[in-house]
Amino acid sequence: MIIIGIDPGTASTGYGIIEKIVPRHRGNKNKEQKNINLFRCLGYGLIKTTPAVPTPERLKKIHQELLKILKTFKPTVLVMESIYFFKNLKTAIPVSQAQGVILLAAAKKKIPVFQYTPLQAKAIVTGYGRAEKKTVQKKIKSLLKLKELPKPDDAADALAIAMAHFLLKKG
Amino acid sequence: MIIIGIDPGTASTGYGIIEKIVPRHRGNKNKEQKNINLFRCLGYGLIKTTPAVPTPERLKKIHQELLKILKTFKPTVLVMESIYFFKNLKTAIPVSQAQGVILLAAAKKKIPVFQYTPLQAKAIVTGYGRAEKKTVQKKIKSLLKLKELPKPDDAADALAIAMAHFLLKKG
Repeated sequence: MIIIGIDPGTASTGYGIIEKIVPRHRGNKNKEQKNINLFRCLGYGLIKTTPAVPTPERLKKIHQELLKILKTFKPTVLVMESIYFFKNLKTAIPVSQAQGVILLAAAKKKIPVFQYTPLQAKAIVTGYGRAEKKTVQKKIKSLLKLKELPKPDDAADALAIAMAHFLLKKG
Repeated sequence: MIIIGIDPGTASTGYGIIEKIVPRHRGNKNKEQKNINLFRCLGYGLIKTTPAVPTPERLKKIHQELLKILKTFKPTVLVMESIYFFKNLKTAIPVSQAQGVILLAAAKKKIPVFQYTPLQAKAIVTGYGRAEKKTVQKKIKSLLKLKELPKPDDAADALAIAMAHFLLKKG
């Protein structure tokens, strides 16, 4: 199973891809091995657009770049950060517009979509919904055995949401 | 000039297309003719999706149907209703997601986009921003010489926003 996590935004859309690794020697496993979740990070990064470009063009870039990423990594699940509460509507509109072209890309590639709020993702990954960004990043680094903290924040958030889905569905 | 007006929504996206008619006998015009705005309605309707279908599929339908409409009518301008104030965020999210795939369609077809709020559109068309829906529809019917009031509301709103852009840009 390959999961792509997405933190949507018109200026910056973060993505992170994790893969579940199926252990090779299934017959040989002991109790300890059974309880190990094996996964690895295939990649993470940002789709960035500049404010100088009209919104339709920025959305087109997000859509097209994401289609390329989906083609490269062939995820079987797309997990997107959803919004339920925002400081103001002006932030909610561009985020939702970006979500629109992201969901369209998933539909085109026939990839099922799951959504979690940042609060849910943090709670699943760290056990505490209001955890600091740094705490989440450290946890992700440790789980995925990354050499350094995942950066920038939007990419780290995307990895966290992908990880949250993985952890939630493991049982 | 062909203008398509769009009233975006995930469940129902209204569209309306108007064309500016260039008078044939340009040399012969008197003062009265000069001040006449000639336009006609090329069509209007709805792109409907059902709540039973997952959101990504609904957005895909809106996107694909709109691309077909753009291919058929070849508008040179796309005018979309924008939102600045909503009763709740739950309404703003699906509307903005629909806007996302609509703006993407415009970018794909290289059609410039203009946006007005319903208040602006009503004010331009009827002279009063808080005009009743029926009043706007009657005005649209009269301006476009339609045989009946444009229906349903989302399609009428789309025609109104297209008309507003036309009237605003005529000078």
